[in-house]
Amino acid sequence: MNHDPTIAAQMQALLDNLTKPKGSLGKLEEFALRCAEIQSRVPPRISSKRAYVFAADHGIADEGVSLYPKDVTRQMVLNMLAGGAAINVLGGGCGFDVRTVDAGVAHGFDDPRVIDARIAAGTRSFLREPAMSDEQLARCLEHGRRLAQEAVDDGVHLVTLGDMGIGNTSSAAAMLVAAGFSSGEMVDRGTGISEEMLAHKRATIDQAVERHGPYRDAHQIMRCMGGFELCMIAGFILGLRGAGMICVIDGFPVTAGAYMAWRVDPEVAEFLFAGHRSHVRGHGAVLADMGLEPILQLEMRLGEGTGAVLGGFLIDMAVKVSREMASFDTAGVERSSEDEEDY
Amino acid sequence: MNHDPTIAAQMQALLDNLTKPKGSLGKLEEFALRCAEIQSRVPPRISSKRAYVFAADHGIADEGVSLYPKDVTRQMVLNMLAGGAAINVLGGGCGFDVRTVDAGVAHGFDDPRVIDARIAAGTRSFLREPAMSDEQLARCLEHGRRLAQEAVDDGVHLVTLGDMGIGNTSSAAAMLVAAGFSSGEMVDRGTGISEEMLAHKRATIDQAVERHGPYRDAHQIMRCMGGFELCMIAGFILGLRGAGMICVIDGFPVTAGAYMAWRVDPEVAEFLFAGHRSHVRGHGAVLADMGLEPILQLEMRLGEGTGAVLGGFLIDMAVKVSREMASFDTAGVERSSEDEEDY
Repeated sequence: MNHDPTIAAQMQALLDNLTKPKGSLGKLEEFALRCAEIQSRVPPRISSKRAYVFAADHGIADEGVSLYPKDVTRQMVLNMLAGGAAINVLGGGCGFDVRTVDAGVAHGFDDPRVIDARIAAGTRSFLREPAMSDEQLARCLEHGRRLAQEAVDDGVHLVTLGDMGIGNTSSAAAMLVAAGFSSGEMVDRGTGISEEMLAHKRATIDQAVERHGPYRDAHQIMRCMGGFELCMIAGFILGLRGAGMICVIDGFPVTAGAYMAWRVDPEVAEFLFAGHRSHVRGHGAVLADMGLEPILQLEMRLGEGTGAVLGGFLIDMAVKVSREMASFDTAGVERSSEDEEDY
Repeated sequence: MNHDPTIAAQMQALLDNLTKPKGSLGKLEEFALRCAEIQSRVPPRISSKRAYVFAADHGIADEGVSLYPKDVTRQMVLNMLAGGAAINVLGGGCGFDVRTVDAGVAHGFDDPRVIDARIAAGTRSFLREPAMSDEQLARCLEHGRRLAQEAVDDGVHLVTLGDMGIGNTSSAAAMLVAAGFSSGEMVDRGTGISEEMLAHKRATIDQAVERHGPYRDAHQIMRCMGGFELCMIAGFILGLRGAGMICVIDGFPVTAGAYMAWRVDPEVAEFLFAGHRSHVRGHGAVLADMGLEPILQLEMRLGEGTGAVLGGFLIDMAVKVSREMASFDTAGVERSSEDEEDY
């Protein structure tokens, strides 16, 4: 990213000259400033927004960690194609073009509306063996980079990253525990899971992390316990390095993918926003490690990118304000006698 | 409001049948449920949203409590008419029709786009005498009720209430202190005001509250220390009683007006939402007293209804989700083996 101090200074001057008390738009001003820095443009611009949903299946789902049958991944992708999933409604309502990526759903799709980035028919169970091969991980990352470049080439200004995959909270938790977080924080009760099932899920993850360790680097963690969609998200984020794209991540699984990208290259945090803090207790800690503060806290735990599109909409509004509000100079409004005060 | 338990049960059943884990849309589900109850309709419907900005001047502004010259109220109304204020950009971006009401700006407007509800050319300084007469207060409340009825008659489903008035944070704080809150909480440092000025503002408010007390009721508080725009907001809210309108309040000044309405009739809380928690330390306590939890916390302190339209947009999205998502029955997606679990 271009660390041009003149961009920040110009953007701050622009914000301070809008017809409002200085700083009174709070976080919105911070968002607009960050967008200017990411895009190296004053004011920033968001005229095209795209919401990606990465879908894949997980071998770990066969180990009794999820209450949903694995086939729900496929069913939900079909639901997205029909426009009936939450991401369709919220993404559409927030002005996003929603794209679904098959990163490795057990049963594939014969539908041109699904972006084909299939690695295999789901990962292997990481309780028993590494979730994927080196070659599969390399392809995940490569597909992610390719899709990122396509979004850039298409002139998209803001992307959100969402996930769909039965069992992927287990994959996400395992990767984060392998990266040093505690399983107590990363495998949370949620609102409905029973105590027994929680204990089972936590033990499963601890056992798997123990089995595949010690861990040299993020690549090893991803290969041993990743999901195709989560590793592809990591690749997507790595592929945005230097591209001037604003990227909003979603809940716990997407954050695990983003965290792996950040471990490979901490500079990626500069163009990331966290749309929403999920109900998983440890989510905030992972975001904080990357220096990200969630925009929204609405107790959502749906995934698909739903929190990211709502947060992304607020970023869009922040940029819109910076572009469309009148300035003191042009509107004939007097300034305050001091710097920062309410009306 | 119609406390029909079948509405809540029907709406809950509808939400639980959407293609997502039960409860996984968190606060959005709560918003949609409340909207169904307010409208007595399953699913609820928001196809018309209107943002009102109530503007007026305050005698107290001449006592050195504000850093802005009083004429900024008029200038900002003109800025709103030209589409250059923050509420125009954010309100427009969130799908609101923005309406500006002159409740008593010092210099009036000769412009048909301003809704004329002028009480007088600003209130008197409540440091020296009651801010308004009994008759002026009655007209404020009456104009508010009339405008509320107009919005209902126009088929609006959701209104947001915003404010513009140099000095109105002092009027708001004084009313709330008279109502029992501490001036330490209600007159806050903000981010820019100097220690000296804060002490002066707090002393001014304590002195005024002392002078006009003791207080029998909200009407006396409003008459002694209210602003025309804040009392009109109280009247507007009282006028919505039983109308099935969803109403989103904004920051600290609007909340003071809403609080007065709530003291007159606590049932109004049933159709109110709090869009945003402002930086004023005591704002959260006042909202909590009414049982309201702010939707957003973005450190904004601008007023005009900017926090309300952003919060109102999320309510709109919640309702949209409840209307447009596919159900398990129609989408061919399997349910979980237990009630509430993540994918």
